[in-house]
Amino acid sequence: MSDALEGTVSRIQPPDRDVALQTARLLDAKTKPPGSLGRLEDLAGRLAAIRGEVPVGALRPAIVVAAGDHGVAVEGVSPYPQEVTGQMLTNFATGGAAVAVLAREAGARLVVVDAGVLAPPAVDGVRSEVVDGARGTGNIAIGPAMPVRVALRLIEGGIALAGELADDGIGIVATGDMGIANTTAASALCAALLPADASLVCGRGTGLDEIGVARKIEVVRRALTANGLGGASNDPIAVLASVGGLEIAFLTGVILGAASRRVPVLLDGFVTGAAALVAATIAPAAAGAMVAATRSPEPGHSLVLDRLALDPLLDLGLRLGEGSGAALALPLVRAAMAILTDMATFESAGVSRA
Amino acid sequence: MSDALEGTVSRIQPPDRDVALQTARLLDAKTKPPGSLGRLEDLAGRLAAIRGEVPVGALRPAIVVAAGDHGVAVEGVSPYPQEVTGQMLTNFATGGAAVAVLAREAGARLVVVDAGVLAPPAVDGVRSEVVDGARGTGNIAIGPAMPVRVALRLIEGGIALAGELADDGIGIVATGDMGIANTTAASALCAALLPADASLVCGRGTGLDEIGVARKIEVVRRALTANGLGGASNDPIAVLASVGGLEIAFLTGVILGAASRRVPVLLDGFVTGAAALVAATIAPAAAGAMVAATRSPEPGHSLVLDRLALDPLLDLGLRLGEGSGAALALPLVRAAMAILTDMATFESAGVSRA
Repeated sequence: MSDALEGTVSRIQPPDRDVALQTARLLDAKTKPPGSLGRLEDLAGRLAAIRGEVPVGALRPAIVVAAGDHGVAVEGVSPYPQEVTGQMLTNFATGGAAVAVLAREAGARLVVVDAGVLAPPAVDGVRSEVVDGARGTGNIAIGPAMPVRVALRLIEGGIALAGELADDGIGIVATGDMGIANTTAASALCAALLPADASLVCGRGTGLDEIGVARKIEVVRRALTANGLGGASNDPIAVLASVGGLEIAFLTGVILGAASRRVPVLLDGFVTGAAALVAATIAPAAAGAMVAATRSPEPGHSLVLDRLALDPLLDLGLRLGEGSGAALALPLVRAAMAILTDMATFESAGVSRA
Repeated sequence: MSDALEGTVSRIQPPDRDVALQTARLLDAKTKPPGSLGRLEDLAGRLAAIRGEVPVGALRPAIVVAAGDHGVAVEGVSPYPQEVTGQMLTNFATGGAAVAVLAREAGARLVVVDAGVLAPPAVDGVRSEVVDGARGTGNIAIGPAMPVRVALRLIEGGIALAGELADDGIGIVATGDMGIANTTAASALCAALLPADASLVCGRGTGLDEIGVARKIEVVRRALTANGLGGASNDPIAVLASVGGLEIAFLTGVILGAASRRVPVLLDGFVTGAAALVAATIAPAAAGAMVAATRSPEPGHSLVLDRLALDPLLDLGLRLGEGSGAALALPLVRAAMAILTDMATFESAGVSRA
């Protein structure tokens, strides 16, 4: 670990239990039967405990969507051509992609990050975080994705961005990803870090058929072998550099950085879940700052959520990534904060108690 | 049935299948793998099919929350005193209740209806729909809730309100309820109309313990016997008048009226689900206009959802009612419409296809 990373990790505090209790008391005074808003009340308590204050007020949201290319695409693990990663990066910045539309609907700032796309985007509005000219990873089926030094610098870049957002008054950061073939990298990360057999983590991604999934499982197995990741205990940063992705490394940093600033992290689907698993393996306390927006149909995602003790807010069969699921959960975050600050109490409204 | 009700029922059309197919084609052209936005895409298709046009554009939302008192409260089936119904009606109108807060967050018009609360509200902003001075129902454990004539006139009032909202450009109507002891009435309605044993539909409501639930089951059994509702096939309006509620009758009308105007109905929890069951028993085609926002922990609600072939968007353990669950699902409705109208296509964004 670098000094910057170690410093960040050391600053990550667990959620404040007293604040969670205070929030529960505050909610019980509101004009509703205790607990009748179900998981919305739990969400309010968790967010307040992460922030460390109650009442919290509205949390200004940002969505960070990071894109990177994957050398393993040559193994035929995605139905889409690799050029789509860069095309979609442009589509994020110009506002036509799902996450761009949903971020507008949710009133969230969208931060579009090039973490290493093969073709540099030709539009404004993309933040370049490319490290050492690393555009695209190596093919993990035959060797490492990236040098450890690149992984570390990407993590540091993510930490820096999270810090900027926190300084700018952002109160919740949602994560999103783009990268053709990146569910293969995410599967390899999960297989190595959980650990779990490749067959238990690999799914259809953006639309593989059964033969495609079988090929993906085989590719993940080859990736683990080629990178010497057979054992049960693995150094998370080494694993990330071996079989991860540039965007996944950057998002790992965003998650750690947000957690160190008491900014809740709203996770999207499987790929950002893999980044969260890397982050929580580096710094177990970081899991306390996470909220899961959505459950992906990718089988590996449920394993990751169990490991992180997260129960997603939505289960709508979303498998797009980009942060689209996180964007869809942002109104629930907003609602959770609103009931805490805006609802009347039994006393203020003159309503009789049970 | 009255002439007005018969006319409304005859105007309810099933969702337009061609529009659903057109919507699916439109969504497949958007920059995302086909179907990758999961149930959000299904929702877009269903809403467009109900409206009968594509693209639909944003649907202006209204939440109708109707309140009524229940004579069965004297049987001790709720931990709350009966006066809370009227107090909460005021709390809706003055903006401190959960649904008022959540309606503001969702940008929805809140229509607060007095369908027969014991104490008339002393604030502005409440629409009185009280029929023949019927403030509160009779105790269903010993006799009918209301005369059939009152039930019919409340249904007609709901139809009229839905018509006004449709005329006013409202594109989706969410339903909400308030009434101390009204989960007992909803349970009796479900037991009679599904039909199902009282023990399979009764739950904890706003917070009964096990003894309280046992008492509630017994009260529902007595209500069915006292009102001669032992048989399997029951006239829905007779059942509604026998064991329903004033607010439930009004909401039945809102649902039928909205369906007849091709305005989708976003259902809240168990009590509005009981109104939906009455509506769909009167007019089976009305079920086609419904979208379920949330799954209540009340066991009867899942039976109703199955009968209506509805799969809720949210499953957050919400059991407040008021339309709070429907309000929380409105951003998903908005998002579904936004992806349909605002997302780029593969062609417009120059993104390669699979």
